[in-house]
Amino acid sequence: MKKLINKPENVLKEQLEGFQAAHADHVNVHFDPTFITRSSKTRKGKVALISGGGSGHEPMHGGFVGAGMLDAACPGEIFTSPTPDQMHAAAKACDSGAGVLNIVKNYTGDVMNFEMAADLAREEDIKVQNIVIDDDIAVKDSLYTAGRRGVGTTVLAEKICGGAAEDGYTLEKLSDLCRKVNRYGRSMGMALTSCITPENGTPSFDIGDDEIEIGIGIHGEPGMSREKIKPADEITERMTTEILDETPYKRTLKEWNFDEDDWVEVEVEDAPFKKGDSFIVFVNSMGGTPVSELYAVYRKVAEVLDGRGMKIARSLVGPYITSLEMQGCSITLLKADEEILKYWDAPADAPAFKQ
Amino acid sequence: MKKLINKPENVLKEQLEGFQAAHADHVNVHFDPTFITRSSKTRKGKVALISGGGSGHEPMHGGFVGAGMLDAACPGEIFTSPTPDQMHAAAKACDSGAGVLNIVKNYTGDVMNFEMAADLAREEDIKVQNIVIDDDIAVKDSLYTAGRRGVGTTVLAEKICGGAAEDGYTLEKLSDLCRKVNRYGRSMGMALTSCITPENGTPSFDIGDDEIEIGIGIHGEPGMSREKIKPADEITERMTTEILDETPYKRTLKEWNFDEDDWVEVEVEDAPFKKGDSFIVFVNSMGGTPVSELYAVYRKVAEVLDGRGMKIARSLVGPYITSLEMQGCSITLLKADEEILKYWDAPADAPAFKQ
Repeated sequence: MKKLINKPENVLKEQLEGFQAAHADHVNVHFDPTFITRSSKTRKGKVALISGGGSGHEPMHGGFVGAGMLDAACPGEIFTSPTPDQMHAAAKACDSGAGVLNIVKNYTGDVMNFEMAADLAREEDIKVQNIVIDDDIAVKDSLYTAGRRGVGTTVLAEKICGGAAEDGYTLEKLSDLCRKVNRYGRSMGMALTSCITPENGTPSFDIGDDEIEIGIGIHGEPGMSREKIKPADEITERMTTEILDETPYKRTLKEWNFDEDDWVEVEVEDAPFKKGDSFIVFVNSMGGTPVSELYAVYRKVAEVLDGRGMKIARSLVGPYITSLEMQGCSITLLKADEEILKYWDAPADAPAFKQ
Repeated sequence: MKKLINKPENVLKEQLEGFQAAHADHVNVHFDPTFITRSSKTRKGKVALISGGGSGHEPMHGGFVGAGMLDAACPGEIFTSPTPDQMHAAAKACDSGAGVLNIVKNYTGDVMNFEMAADLAREEDIKVQNIVIDDDIAVKDSLYTAGRRGVGTTVLAEKICGGAAEDGYTLEKLSDLCRKVNRYGRSMGMALTSCITPENGTPSFDIGDDEIEIGIGIHGEPGMSREKIKPADEITERMTTEILDETPYKRTLKEWNFDEDDWVEVEVEDAPFKKGDSFIVFVNSMGGTPVSELYAVYRKVAEVLDGRGMKIARSLVGPYITSLEMQGCSITLLKADEEILKYWDAPADAPAFKQ
């Protein structure tokens, strides 16, 4: 296993110590339980925005803690959900009285633990809402998930909701915005190579020297199909077309109902993508693919959108939600309206995202 | 060869088309000859800052074109120097009458072509200075270079000199600052894996499954030693110690002498690094190593500096000067003084660097 690590069991701790040392001006890393907060306290009256999930996807989420983005992030062990006590400690550290919005990627452990953490916080009179992101159109139900997986739209939601939270959105209004971002965003990933978790020391899956996996998950979960490698244009056109032609997906997601004082199932349906729509286009590296290749992909995404009479309003290209050293990319299209663009453009100053 | 590319001969063109499409708000990409400028013209009286070099090191240099950093970048083919006509066209497009500073990494082709381009520009009454960066302590004289290679300090020089140029530095004063940054900066790299250039399609060098190369160059040129893989702490301590203990290096570098109206050899000597010094610490990914591993490296660099009674003033962690998909990292230590920190902290808004 070729990695810049020491003992596998210390990888997360040491990486967080380095993160703290490099970004002491932006963040505080807390241990036992482990969570990352901004170095300054949440402003009185501002809703606290928190996210978290398994590690191995850096810079997400810790790199997005900072002004205009998250108030806190809870990193689990590699590819493992964080625990409720981490999320609960983060909520207590960040709540300024205006409540907490947890942005939760749709993986079974994350969803369950963020629900338990919300219940714990409510017992201490902290108002909490959880909004689930499930934007990965590649598969429904997989190794880690019931329903679709949460991927690239999460990064965009953390930026957009972060901007709105700074602007004074109430917990209700911020939850509405986060729901909309999830309904407006769709993603798909692909892998050229596997990744290796330090604990295992061997590739998470086998893939031939001439093969790619379309629809890969961010933990190396199987995707839609194993194929022979093709030119970037063909791969990109295929993925972009799948995203654009996806039938708007109907499902129920669990949220807290403040009137009923209970968890309820809420019906959610993706917004349709149609001619004339504008998008934030996000081309993401899985970790091992250099940014130069992402631009070749971006070029073809732009061409496909143009051919459909669709516009690009903003773009993001780089490694933001990764799978350790996996080579590959993901494409996220987020339909943009005035509110989304306003908060996309709002200032942000986090270690891994500045606007 | 597993890459997100189409035909190898179109890689650079397509990547630049994608870069243009993604960052039209920041940059204009020109073809025939190929160079990248800011989307707005150089302000009257501001010295134009230009760099360039072979492609494959993205985001350097194109990603650093923008307010507070470069006015233009000249990308060559992959791992191949750009040509004098590219650099000349960039100088003509950017000169506002205050002259041009070319930041040149010390590779034989780059140095020669930037000199020819400066001569061409002078024939058209554009005032040009070239400052060479040669900060890689690993080897003297190598496959592409006479003397030391130019690596990570280049990124820092582009940021710092970019800030000073915006602040109204004359060409002479800006050249002095750039010389100082070169004298104050030292780097070393290491590789876990090779990279593959699209034209060749096979690894640039062979390396065993249990081997690393210490002192690697950014084109995969051989370094100081081939070793068995070790814990990140050991590798990092070794590299940091080599950088700190390097005997200040004396050499001559070619510059333009405006009084003599000719190229002259100038004696240059690295500044010593000593107890009490403050540094900008830059831990860079070679492209395929995820940011999580860089933080483990950063942590140990900080520990070594602390043990020597040295301080970290600022830090930069991420993929900034890469070698395609090579796995590995480089460490750059730049001794910081008030002037360097002032312009490090100055605003910047380029596609790959915001401050």
